[in-house]
Amino acid sequence: MALIVHKYGGTSMGSTDRIRNVAKRVAKWARAGHQMVVVPSAMSGETNRLLGLAKELSPAGASTPELMRELDMIAATGEQVSVGLLAIALQAEGLEAVSYTGWQVPVQTDSSHTKARIESIDDARVRADLAAGKVVVIAGFQGVDEEQNITTLGRGGSDTSAVAIAAAMKADECLIYTDVDGVYTTDPRIVPEARRLHTISFEEMLEMASLGSKILQIRSVEFAGKYRVPLRVLSSFTPWDIDINEEAKSGTLISFEEDEKMEQAVVSGIAFNRDEAKVTLLGVPDKPGIAFQILGPVADANIDVDVIIQNVSQDGKTDFSFTVHRNDYARAIELLEKTVGPAVQAAKVLGDQRICKVSIVGIGMRSHVGVASKMFRALSEEGINIQMISTSEIKTSVVIDEKYMELAVRALHKAFDLDQDQAA
Amino acid sequence: MALIVHKYGGTSMGSTDRIRNVAKRVAKWARAGHQMVVVPSAMSGETNRLLGLAKELSPAGASTPELMRELDMIAATGEQVSVGLLAIALQAEGLEAVSYTGWQVPVQTDSSHTKARIESIDDARVRADLAAGKVVVIAGFQGVDEEQNITTLGRGGSDTSAVAIAAAMKADECLIYTDVDGVYTTDPRIVPEARRLHTISFEEMLEMASLGSKILQIRSVEFAGKYRVPLRVLSSFTPWDIDINEEAKSGTLISFEEDEKMEQAVVSGIAFNRDEAKVTLLGVPDKPGIAFQILGPVADANIDVDVIIQNVSQDGKTDFSFTVHRNDYARAIELLEKTVGPAVQAAKVLGDQRICKVSIVGIGMRSHVGVASKMFRALSEEGINIQMISTSEIKTSVVIDEKYMELAVRALHKAFDLDQDQAA
Repeated sequence: MALIVHKYGGTSMGSTDRIRNVAKRVAKWARAGHQMVVVPSAMSGETNRLLGLAKELSPAGASTPELMRELDMIAATGEQVSVGLLAIALQAEGLEAVSYTGWQVPVQTDSSHTKARIESIDDARVRADLAAGKVVVIAGFQGVDEEQNITTLGRGGSDTSAVAIAAAMKADECLIYTDVDGVYTTDPRIVPEARRLHTISFEEMLEMASLGSKILQIRSVEFAGKYRVPLRVLSSFTPWDIDINEEAKSGTLISFEEDEKMEQAVVSGIAFNRDEAKVTLLGVPDKPGIAFQILGPVADANIDVDVIIQNVSQDGKTDFSFTVHRNDYARAIELLEKTVGPAVQAAKVLGDQRICKVSIVGIGMRSHVGVASKMFRALSEEGINIQMISTSEIKTSVVIDEKYMELAVRALHKAFDLDQDQAA
Repeated sequence: MALIVHKYGGTSMGSTDRIRNVAKRVAKWARAGHQMVVVPSAMSGETNRLLGLAKELSPAGASTPELMRELDMIAATGEQVSVGLLAIALQAEGLEAVSYTGWQVPVQTDSSHTKARIESIDDARVRADLAAGKVVVIAGFQGVDEEQNITTLGRGGSDTSAVAIAAAMKADECLIYTDVDGVYTTDPRIVPEARRLHTISFEEMLEMASLGSKILQIRSVEFAGKYRVPLRVLSSFTPWDIDINEEAKSGTLISFEEDEKMEQAVVSGIAFNRDEAKVTLLGVPDKPGIAFQILGPVADANIDVDVIIQNVSQDGKTDFSFTVHRNDYARAIELLEKTVGPAVQAAKVLGDQRICKVSIVGIGMRSHVGVASKMFRALSEEGINIQMISTSEIKTSVVIDEKYMELAVRALHKAFDLDQDQAA
């Protein structure tokens, strides 16, 4: 008998028929003797509907803490409806089931409305229910702060809730049911030969998640790593009555144990991202403190910076480039042209939105030399110019012209033999 | 400066445009210097939508406490969305506003899910907000039990919430905004000459409410009477920007002070109800305990009984009649024919669904003789046969053939001069 946490996304909860299927799947696990905690998202579309109503009424342009508090009050109802409906569907399956909101558990968070962080989870009540043979359904995405205000964790927060609950309860495994059947070596829509990974290390998953594989919210992966929660991503589209042993091995296990199989693969996957834009300050005086003089105001303007490049100086001048999210591009350019550029005596401000970032990710890179150069050669053979390079222990990213993205991903997928089975 | 509670029904909260109008109306009151607490219902249709989803998933025919708990979990979200949206709309009006769910106040109730009763309200948090100049928006219809489970008060519970909050806070007046502009001497759809009452005593309102004037939930009137909360029913369809002094005097005040004006009117209104059906046991042996032998099993079957008549006996036999809600009619007849009738050796079971109850209500009846006989004469003059009679201190009800209902109401309205102005 194990303690298992299931998390179901909004699509899985999208209709009463689908909720009934979720209940049948959970019932199968419960009947196999497992203690079950289930964390569902809001029914698909519901959070957007609710926030749409709120937006119609909101003061133009406002984002006061008071407004954010009310948005949380409203948005949290989506998951509250889901847990009630799922508990009822489980009761209809003949199980004892009880639902809880975030505050009822309680899932204690800080007071950062709409993007709160979980501080602690008291699992006493849930544990008592499990001991009494009940399936416990807990609302994801939400918590409560010290003053008893309802908070939400931000988009994708239900993943984080599920993992945090699994961590607090020391669950044996946290299964994230989603609309993909696992983590792939890269996006199969771009590389048809992309393979599903049976396991991936949590560090790799972190890089894959942050680099644009939108399977899991990155904070949930961080949480899983920090608290060593075995996490499995698997498909919610398999029939609910497939053999439980088969289901338990399906999808991709995100593990914190580096087993041999993982060591064999130098590169586990190719991630990519075309949400970024590049900005460059040309001819900046190369003197101490220049990076801070440039990036300080950018950070103050709440613009996140990803890749940063400073070239070696020539004649006491240097070029300074960084990437920002495309949504922040216009603001970043304006800031550089009006304030930062003149302040640091830059000769010129350049910008380019038509870029993409392609990354190879693999825990094996730590102990293998020449991985990056193999990447650069593969791109060079396709005639793809590299604009920026950024590396970490288990990842190498390049910024290239957006139009080469698919070509680059396919070339790298082939160069690192990702179309061959890991175990082969 | 007064402490005022406003309650808005689902129609008033039915769209973002309407919520904006509610906010403007509340803002007008706040700017006039009043401390404002607002209790909105769920957006119209929302509670039915939510319970419809729940019903699709519920085990057939089940009504376990566990299921009821989940229904409350789900239904309570309707008001939670409303309070958040209204608080945002108030903020957009430039006011400081904060919303609370039932559990946040907290509104403490018993654990009777879907029909909980309020036990206590802690107003400390709300009072602090009011003192800080905030408008406080509180979710109606809901509370929390001792084990921190969410409860709801049942249909129309938002009226009760508003009155209970007004009582706990010793509010100067509780204004119930609704889709009628006050309490009428009778239904204007039946008697075009029906007049709006400027004031009505809480006892009269109680009789009017329980007799089918569906303006206020009866429990809210009981609450208002018990805690002496001045209650006003007024229209939510007047423009939000009408003069506040005019608005404050509009509608009908439900008062617990019997002023002179009220004493003048012997009968304040005519109520009617065609939701009942009549059942009769003929030829029952007239012996002690017979009423209990009949009505005990009926109560055990959860069938509410209203009017009860037992005729004087002849030859040791009597006839026993009572009315039940039409929804319970078939069950009542079956129960009498199969169980109760044989048990008490009744000669025959009769039933009639085509009846109605018409009542005259008036606090002045206490001190005026001949009111009932005036009623009977008016009906007799129209050739209407009276099947049953039931009286209380401030009301006389008759059960008659359904087809005479409109005729009876009109005749009584005229007989008691209700088309003349009270003050005249």
